[in-house]
Amino acid sequence: MTDTLSDADLREHLDRLDGWTVVDGKLHKELAFTDFVTAFGFMTRLAMVAERMNHHPDWSNSWNTVTLDIASHAAGGITAACVELAEAADRLA
Amino acid sequence: MTDTLSDADLREHLDRLDGWTVVDGKLHKELAFTDFVTAFGFMTRLAMVAERMNHHPDWSNSWNTVTLDIASHAAGGITAACVELAEAADRLA
Amino acid sequence: MTDTLSDADLREHLDRLDGWTVVDGKLHKELAFTDFVTAFGFMTRLAMVAERMNHHPDWSNSWNTVTLDIASHAAGGITAACVELAEAADRLA
Amino acid sequence: MTDTLSDADLREHLDRLDGWTVVDGKLHKELAFTDFVTAFGFMTRLAMVAERMNHHPDWSNSWNTVTLDIASHAAGGITAACVELAEAADRLA
Repeated sequence: MTDTLSDADLREHLDRLDGWTVVDGKLHKELAFTDFVTAFGFMTRLAMVAERMNHHPDWSNSWNTVTLDIASHAAGGITAACVELAEAADRLA
Repeated sequence: MTDTLSDADLREHLDRLDGWTVVDGKLHKELAFTDFVTAFGFMTRLAMVAERMNHHPDWSNSWNTVTLDIASHAAGGITAACVELAEAADRLA
Repeated sequence: MTDTLSDADLREHLDRLDGWTVVDGKLHKELAFTDFVTAFGFMTRLAMVAERMNHHPDWSNSWNTVTLDIASHAAGGITAACVELAEAADRLA
Repeated sequence: MTDTLSDADLREHLDRLDGWTVVDGKLHKELAFTDFVTAFGFMTRLAMVAERMNHHPDWSNSWNTVTLDIASHAAGGITAACVELAEAADRLA
């Protein structure tokens, strides 16, 4: 979980993941919700999962939108744990 | 919003609401979720709505279950605002 | 973490913990906050820690109060993990 | 609450507020917390207050830091409500 993914592995994950791209070396996705309450409800669910994984997203929120940027500060890039957190975000959204 | 509902009005609301009963003078419902993360995500959404309404539930949580008991402390019973909070809970669940 | 504590160990922990008692076989404490926002903020912090520990409290909230009842459903009693969760609650409150 | 503040009024508020500047036409502040749990706990408290005010920040989080950017989309600038939300953030932090 602590090594950055090879280009080949990363490409394979991106092909499989729904709507994720790589921006500035991080897994990136923008999500839109109905309103602030549902957007922040999603953030709270993901916050609990992130804390359990001890792997936290860089993220921003503006009313009904949540933007996720996921990388490993420790590994200096995108790791298997980043992919796992992205998958958890999709599951919870 | 600040007067307790008449018995007739309350009965009418209970006929319409999904799965709510009156227990100890409060609107009562037990909700089951997939797991703790989804249960607490629901609580966070309802917490924001409750704060906006300035009308807060008595509630408890045990892993994937949330039990709601809604009454107005100020009015000493069930008011139109209680019904509104119950409807919000159903919408958010 | 998975065995229930001996009576002697439990007593020792209770002597050390601040304001915790045993009620119905669970570690029990009532906490009062300034208002709903601070009470639910505490609950959210503890929710993240509980999810990380995979050990969740039974708890209830009524506006500014939070009541905690901590036991292990799996072990059928109070374990070292229950004490750890109680300590986390005190740290976060 | 719905008109943008005059330059004079805005300057007066900035003199009084603790650590807020104007960046890209928004009230801006970066806050540091102990860890993710305390940072997200703060966000949850402010989320409830923002929903009650029906005035929500643009904000981002990276582990223990929270960055706030507050403006009124409707008014197209900084209003009295923005200042109120900034004050609430300082109170809750």
